[in-house]
Amino acid sequence: MSHAIPLTTNNGNALNSRAPLKVAIIGGGLVGSLAALSFARRGHEVHLYEYREDIRRAELVQGRSINLALSQRGRKALAEVGLEQEVLATAIPMRGRMLHDIKGNRTVVIYDPCTNQCLYSVGRKYLNEVLLNAGEKFPNIHRHFEHKLNYVNFNEGRMEFKRAPSKEIVEDNADLIVGCDGAFSTVRQQMVRAPGFNYSQEYIEHGYLELCIPAKDGEFQMPENYLHIWPRDEFMMIALPNQDKSFTVTLSMPFKVFKTIRSSEDLLNFFHKYYADAVPLIGKERLIKDFFKSRPQHLVSVKCYPYHYGSKALILGDAAHAMVPYYGQGLNAGMEDCTLLLSLFNQPNLSTAEILEQFTELRWRDAHAICDLAMYNYVEMRDLTKRLSFRWRKWLDTQLFRWFPNFWVPLYNSVSFTSMPYSQCIANRKWQDKLLQNVLISASLAFVAMTAFKYYGGFQTITL
Amino acid sequence: MSHAIPLTTNNGNALNSRAPLKVAIIGGGLVGSLAALSFARRGHEVHLYEYREDIRRAELVQGRSINLALSQRGRKALAEVGLEQEVLATAIPMRGRMLHDIKGNRTVVIYDPCTNQCLYSVGRKYLNEVLLNAGEKFPNIHRHFEHKLNYVNFNEGRMEFKRAPSKEIVEDNADLIVGCDGAFSTVRQQMVRAPGFNYSQEYIEHGYLELCIPAKDGEFQMPENYLHIWPRDEFMMIALPNQDKSFTVTLSMPFKVFKTIRSSEDLLNFFHKYYADAVPLIGKERLIKDFFKSRPQHLVSVKCYPYHYGSKALILGDAAHAMVPYYGQGLNAGMEDCTLLLSLFNQPNLSTAEILEQFTELRWRDAHAICDLAMYNYVEMRDLTKRLSFRWRKWLDTQLFRWFPNFWVPLYNSVSFTSMPYSQCIANRKWQDKLLQNVLISASLAFVAMTAFKYYGGFQTITL
Repeated sequence: MSHAIPLTTNNGNALNSRAPLKVAIIGGGLVGSLAALSFARRGHEVHLYEYREDIRRAELVQGRSINLALSQRGRKALAEVGLEQEVLATAIPMRGRMLHDIKGNRTVVIYDPCTNQCLYSVGRKYLNEVLLNAGEKFPNIHRHFEHKLNYVNFNEGRMEFKRAPSKEIVEDNADLIVGCDGAFSTVRQQMVRAPGFNYSQEYIEHGYLELCIPAKDGEFQMPENYLHIWPRDEFMMIALPNQDKSFTVTLSMPFKVFKTIRSSEDLLNFFHKYYADAVPLIGKERLIKDFFKSRPQHLVSVKCYPYHYGSKALILGDAAHAMVPYYGQGLNAGMEDCTLLLSLFNQPNLSTAEILEQFTELRWRDAHAICDLAMYNYVEMRDLTKRLSFRWRKWLDTQLFRWFPNFWVPLYNSVSFTSMPYSQCIANRKWQDKLLQNVLISASLAFVAMTAFKYYGGFQTITL
Repeated sequence: MSHAIPLTTNNGNALNSRAPLKVAIIGGGLVGSLAALSFARRGHEVHLYEYREDIRRAELVQGRSINLALSQRGRKALAEVGLEQEVLATAIPMRGRMLHDIKGNRTVVIYDPCTNQCLYSVGRKYLNEVLLNAGEKFPNIHRHFEHKLNYVNFNEGRMEFKRAPSKEIVEDNADLIVGCDGAFSTVRQQMVRAPGFNYSQEYIEHGYLELCIPAKDGEFQMPENYLHIWPRDEFMMIALPNQDKSFTVTLSMPFKVFKTIRSSEDLLNFFHKYYADAVPLIGKERLIKDFFKSRPQHLVSVKCYPYHYGSKALILGDAAHAMVPYYGQGLNAGMEDCTLLLSLFNQPNLSTAEILEQFTELRWRDAHAICDLAMYNYVEMRDLTKRLSFRWRKWLDTQLFRWFPNFWVPLYNSVSFTSMPYSQCIANRKWQDKLLQNVLISASLAFVAMTAFKYYGGFQTITL
């Protein structure tokens, strides 16, 4: 079962002019398995440690979203390891948002009407499998599943793991330890204890829970090429299409609201009030079963500085910058970490210590920026999408983008469809806001002047 | 060796109308030993766990400031356990700041010229001893020194310790676990892993290092009733008097500046340039010895929410809200935690779970506020104290305070010399700023109007 397409290089060492390192990657999820591939292609000896069993043999992956929105940064990182086309071939393009209002009316807002770029809905499990399978081609990748990290000594590069079935303690050491172990990273937990390590974790008041709109008669029940959104002020629901023609629905609302829904009746009343059009799509019985099957999950935003410790340890992806999922950039930002890191490894004159230091310095502003943007979009998606001013600005952005595609790229588009550094995307938006404001002021002044000119027969009257 | 004065109650149970709990206090420092006393006075069974040896037998306490500025909130908490007078009897009052400029000129700024309130310089070791000795009178306090907390199970109230010399593992359980284990709290480290626990740690760029101005001929070398400050923009030095007529000097500056001082020559050049008047007081040889004896220490600001976990665990003091030391409120805020907590324990109708929940809700805004204020004062002490506008505002504050002592309490005074909630101190200051601004605007307008009146012979000319 190999989905991997042949890599463009025959020999990993050809990409690397530095002495091969022994690299331990903690976490075999999307970022970890991508990082393993990237290091292996450069001839490093890679040990990939994952505390779960091999996802390719697992039935269900618990506690993580089932599908993800892949955009430019993730695509670029996949292209670098020769996997972009394989992934896109089975991904489902989403050309825009389809907004569902409380009456069931649907409005489409296309992401990129100029160049038709879109997001791609991909299954987490499938993508992980593609990455792991591609790694099978590299004899220098050694996989260790069911190894849970207990402890790291960053100075010595020493790690201690507990093997799952036997509870046996296994030790290893490496020249470089890369923590790709997610939002609750054990590697980071140990970095947090180091003096000088700045860290924050912020939970939002909203939890989320996944539901499903199944396929009907072998077909999608809604148009599949959209990211469906039900914005409802304090609540929100989204749906992304899956390969099997179902949609994964994510219901997001404050924990205190989840708590008020205790019975099937409560649930159906709530859904009929806020998401009436979704009830027949999900199906009453399935809705009740799926809703009460699991508890709503917490959502956390994590920021740190630095991302490395000395010359032997680094964190990437959610371990370094977990974010709330409302910009669809968590995966893309994590994959972009690999792009940046490996571009530094391509510079032959840098030592490992210098690479890690530069990685932190080049990455932290952008990582903090995308965490902030995700938090901002959390408001936008459930609230602003309904407002007229937001729609108007979106329309104006689209028109300007259409007229000046190289000059006026709206924020969402620069984040999702370019590789512009996240912090620059924000700076760009601020500049656009300022320009629009000035144009608005100038236009108002011009209007006043013209009106005066019309009524008083000229400026002379006023200037006197 | 008992410094404890008799407590005002003969029977701890008299203070308590609730069933006694088994309370485990983690950390036998200032806040921990005060909390132990407070719980014991209410008849609870207290187990005080400390990972160091008994401070009363220790020669030196490493890595912590030697003396502290005790103010109103700490005094109040000490008064509640009947120890205020004993502590004040040997503390050294500091009536104001004595500013040392770069030429060695000294200026005094009195803290409270109206009611003569002052800060008190107390030795950390002495204060800890007083608190531990007072605890000796309570058979319901059980002390366990050299017990390092390994692990807590918050749901079960179970703890695992490692005993220092034997490395033996000891288990215990309690109805309530109170983490008073400082800025790097192990109890908090485990709370950080709980979903929904918001947390941030922020290190500042400045480190600190302690030096000493020894007594000379059995006398203080500088006026002792002041907190001495050498503000130097990016750097700062302060000195607090000790019982033995020495001063403990704290040098605070960016780590990168510390790094530039590599030799005795570098050090003397630096001191002659910035702190020339302190060199003969410290003594060249002692300066060199003390400076190179230890590394500069990091300073961290910690914020969390909430402070409790369920009905069995709570953090207090630095564990809950470590702050940079520039407002002298770290100890006072920690002791005030005990005042608040025990006032909630005095309410017979509250369950332990409700008490902990209320503690978080009543405390977090104030704790965050004092952390922010400490960070702000970090700027004020090294920078603003030199500015004319700061001195002018200080003077104006003092005058207004003198005229309206119940109405106009300056920020520093409300923080240091009242028990007004910290967040209210800040709100108060904002209100004062606004009032002064409005007065300034009104005064300017009045001035313009009066000038106009004088030159144009009346308002009529203007209003036409």
